[in-house]
Amino acid sequence: MTPSLKTQNTDKPILYINEEDTSNRWRDALIPLLPEVDFNRDFYIWPDGMRGLENPKDIDIAIVWRPDPGVLKKFENLKAVINLGAGVDAILADSTYPKTVPLIRLIDPALSRHMCEFIIHRVLHFHRKFHIYEKMQRDHIWKELVQDDTLNKSVGILGLGKLGSYVAKSLIPFGFKISGWSRTKKNIKGVKSFHGIENLQRFLKSTNILICLLPLTPQTRGILNFETLSYLPKGAFVINSGRGPQIVENDLILTLNNNHIAGVALDVFCKEPLPIDNPLWDHPKVIITPHIASISSPKSAAVSIAKNIRLIRSGKQPGPLVNLQLGY
Amino acid sequence: MTPSLKTQNTDKPILYINEEDTSNRWRDALIPLLPEVDFNRDFYIWPDGMRGLENPKDIDIAIVWRPDPGVLKKFENLKAVINLGAGVDAILADSTYPKTVPLIRLIDPALSRHMCEFIIHRVLHFHRKFHIYEKMQRDHIWKELVQDDTLNKSVGILGLGKLGSYVAKSLIPFGFKISGWSRTKKNIKGVKSFHGIENLQRFLKSTNILICLLPLTPQTRGILNFETLSYLPKGAFVINSGRGPQIVENDLILTLNNNHIAGVALDVFCKEPLPIDNPLWDHPKVIITPHIASISSPKSAAVSIAKNIRLIRSGKQPGPLVNLQLGY
Repeated sequence: MTPSLKTQNTDKPILYINEEDTSNRWRDALIPLLPEVDFNRDFYIWPDGMRGLENPKDIDIAIVWRPDPGVLKKFENLKAVINLGAGVDAILADSTYPKTVPLIRLIDPALSRHMCEFIIHRVLHFHRKFHIYEKMQRDHIWKELVQDDTLNKSVGILGLGKLGSYVAKSLIPFGFKISGWSRTKKNIKGVKSFHGIENLQRFLKSTNILICLLPLTPQTRGILNFETLSYLPKGAFVINSGRGPQIVENDLILTLNNNHIAGVALDVFCKEPLPIDNPLWDHPKVIITPHIASISSPKSAAVSIAKNIRLIRSGKQPGPLVNLQLGY
Repeated sequence: MTPSLKTQNTDKPILYINEEDTSNRWRDALIPLLPEVDFNRDFYIWPDGMRGLENPKDIDIAIVWRPDPGVLKKFENLKAVINLGAGVDAILADSTYPKTVPLIRLIDPALSRHMCEFIIHRVLHFHRKFHIYEKMQRDHIWKELVQDDTLNKSVGILGLGKLGSYVAKSLIPFGFKISGWSRTKKNIKGVKSFHGIENLQRFLKSTNILICLLPLTPQTRGILNFETLSYLPKGAFVINSGRGPQIVENDLILTLNNNHIAGVALDVFCKEPLPIDNPLWDHPKVIITPHIASISSPKSAAVSIAKNIRLIRSGKQPGPLVNLQLGY
């Protein structure tokens, strides 16, 4: 605990907004880390747990996941908004979001670890042809398939931010050739870096297994369409753990059906939950999971959230901040 | 090339025995590494490529994978037998195997890498519940399942030899608690070591995901039976990449059907190929692959084979040798 603790303003209420009912888990994780906050009195849950709040202007901090548009602007004295997941597209899509309020990105070591588990599993699944062996099991077929070595395979990651570069590094020990594409040039040991839209084609042409971990921005919306997917070598695989609208779903189905793309693993979709009659559910080359690649863990994420709450209330700079212009 | 090369006896023939038709791949990998050997003249393939061999006694080295019983003893002047895979149980089951001839274990960096790919995939598959999400996809069900963190899961490896300890180390970065069981005590950083049959129960009781990488010996045959499988915590998973007869298959099915074991991935079986009417094929909790977890790569394995051929022919000690008493 810092010596300046007693001088901190600790009786301001905190606002919690989440489309999922997980407030108890986050509160329980924060309580031991912020003994100076009275969570019984000063923790308000939108929209059903707001009783007792005298004035919305009293709220100085909002902890949020996918708040409905228009909600945050009701709280005029917000000093910061803390996001509870990796993506901030839902907040930025809210045209009433108060642009002068700093938006804080989630730092959760578990988030990166969980994403790595998901990506490594999917990469190995396609590389080792487990998607084919599963079909062979159904037909009782015992046959060894020809197997490439990882040393001859190239894995390319779209998006080399915090998550993308973490994932890139985690794939190096397997022996794959690793490359990445991002808006600006990155220097990551063992990762061949491509940058800028002018090099996207070159990047895709050299990628056997493509992983999308981009943030959703106007520039990345629809970035994987019939033209760009066709740049991938024939027989390539695609894994999307970024955001659904980055792939034009109908174009993806075309490139699967013309046998250019050999398999796809999708965790995110243009519309979530994926509608029950969406053709992706039954496509034999598509593996679907319900947006579970990376799960924020209250226990591990609360550490940086508590730290940021203290920084904000002692008038210091919290972080890391989302660049509202760039959208991530 | 060593200076002593010219004094080496390089006109002795090499014998190649393999139940699979892969002699060309091994020969092609060895040719550039052993320019002193005339592979056109001195490389004999059992049983159909033996023409021209004047006397079986001329053969000094046999390179083999699962030779039929009785074949090796026909070659009375063998100085060494080089094995082409991880397991030596097929050779040791041959009661006529000439016990005075050193049996050389395969050193193939690709073999360990490929096994790691397989095991990491299977561990993540069960840990992240992808076996359940696959069923949910078939039913168009969009639902996030409760997910444990790796930090709360224990992965236990039966067999901490070269392959087992390599696999154990490769799982550490994921955050799992790692333990291992072996005949003798091992010291591997980050791996809790159990040893001896008297500690098997304690090891199994603390293991959520069990990986079998044991060699097949009289002591390990049937080591996973109804009693020992029941020591695992309820809901445990089992992955067998050792040898089929280490699991009593009927007992395994009982522990799956009474919901004690939650899922199994089998790459090896008591009888291979797995008979088309074996009930394991259709068991909803069993994932089957046709003995493909680890694949020897001629290109990467040939390096140590070529080195051993030179050591043998210059009268030096090749290695590593299989301990014929221990059976691995």
